[in-house]
Amino acid sequence: MIPLSPSLDRLITEIAKLPGLGRKSAARLALFILRQSEDDARRLADAILDVKQRIHLCSVCANLTEDDLCSVCSDHKRDRGLICVVETPGDVLTLEKTNVYRGLYHVLGGALSPLDGISPQDLRTSELFDRLKDGSVREVILATNPTPEGDVTALFLARELNGRKIAVSRIARGVPIGAELENVDEVTLARALEGRTSV
Amino acid sequence: MIPLSPSLDRLITEIAKLPGLGRKSAARLALFILRQSEDDARRLADAILDVKQRIHLCSVCANLTEDDLCSVCSDHKRDRGLICVVETPGDVLTLEKTNVYRGLYHVLGGALSPLDGISPQDLRTSELFDRLKDGSVREVILATNPTPEGDVTALFLARELNGRKIAVSRIARGVPIGAELENVDEVTLARALEGRTSV
Repeated sequence: MIPLSPSLDRLITEIAKLPGLGRKSAARLALFILRQSEDDARRLADAILDVKQRIHLCSVCANLTEDDLCSVCSDHKRDRGLICVVETPGDVLTLEKTNVYRGLYHVLGGALSPLDGISPQDLRTSELFDRLKDGSVREVILATNPTPEGDVTALFLARELNGRKIAVSRIARGVPIGAELENVDEVTLARALEGRTSV
Repeated sequence: MIPLSPSLDRLITEIAKLPGLGRKSAARLALFILRQSEDDARRLADAILDVKQRIHLCSVCANLTEDDLCSVCSDHKRDRGLICVVETPGDVLTLEKTNVYRGLYHVLGGALSPLDGISPQDLRTSELFDRLKDGSVREVILATNPTPEGDVTALFLARELNGRKIAVSRIARGVPIGAELENVDEVTLARALEGRTSV
């Protein structure tokens, strides 16, 4: 077996680091990139660098943005009395696709996991409590993943928010147990939002 | 639904151009790249640009290489009396994985396809005939894909090579009909090489 060209080998290795892509799929994509025009390859490489340089977290909700505030926080038509708490920015994208939710978000940056050593201080929980201080928020919807970690996180937040005169709800168990939010179809997610129950 | 950050939207669009990746998979990969370190993202982008800048076709066999000659053509231990004709550089990589073949290659750059308007002039067929002129090659193995286009290409080459005092063979029908070479497992491919039949 001949050695691969070093640069091709390197590209396959880098692509194979992405989730869900084995070395065989990575080789297929690398050979496709080789066949693409120079312009196409440059557009892809630029897009990768661009996204890292331009995108950061919204200073209020930690959603992804290229500005100081994300497009949800800066949209004055959104209901500022409603905050939906999610684990990742990807979950915001997924929930937005339902076109049902009109409030704001709060991205925790993960879920509680004693086994992985992730405690409330590792998540953006204090930032959430700060946002509730001025009394303008009337309901917090807990939309963490329907996994053990997501459930524990929701339970923790529900307890912390107890007695604050803020309604706290959890998205309905329309979401299949054990799944990740980003893999759930929009219809199920929309139903889960509508059927949220008080906790 | 909020608009995606322009740079994230652009990255998803560029990734979705790759084969086998829909917009949902592309979004998953783009969000992963966002979570990666700046260094990891730069390595991936550099690898993409590098592969386009460094890799070109071997001046003899049109396999991929970073030098003038590919690693097969420049390997003096390879049997120079044997040329294996394949459609793409990816097929060379796949055949090399079998560790069975010790001759040289010739990459056509595709297969004949009247429907797509691909005729012998669009492939590196005359370059193949040029390589046979000095009489040092005793056998040409036709390893085009076992698809209608690959079969027509093999038939065309077999006819052209007829009467040249060169043995012409086709890899055995151990390869599943209708499949692409790069998706065939190594064992089947090795058997197909060993069981090649004269045409």
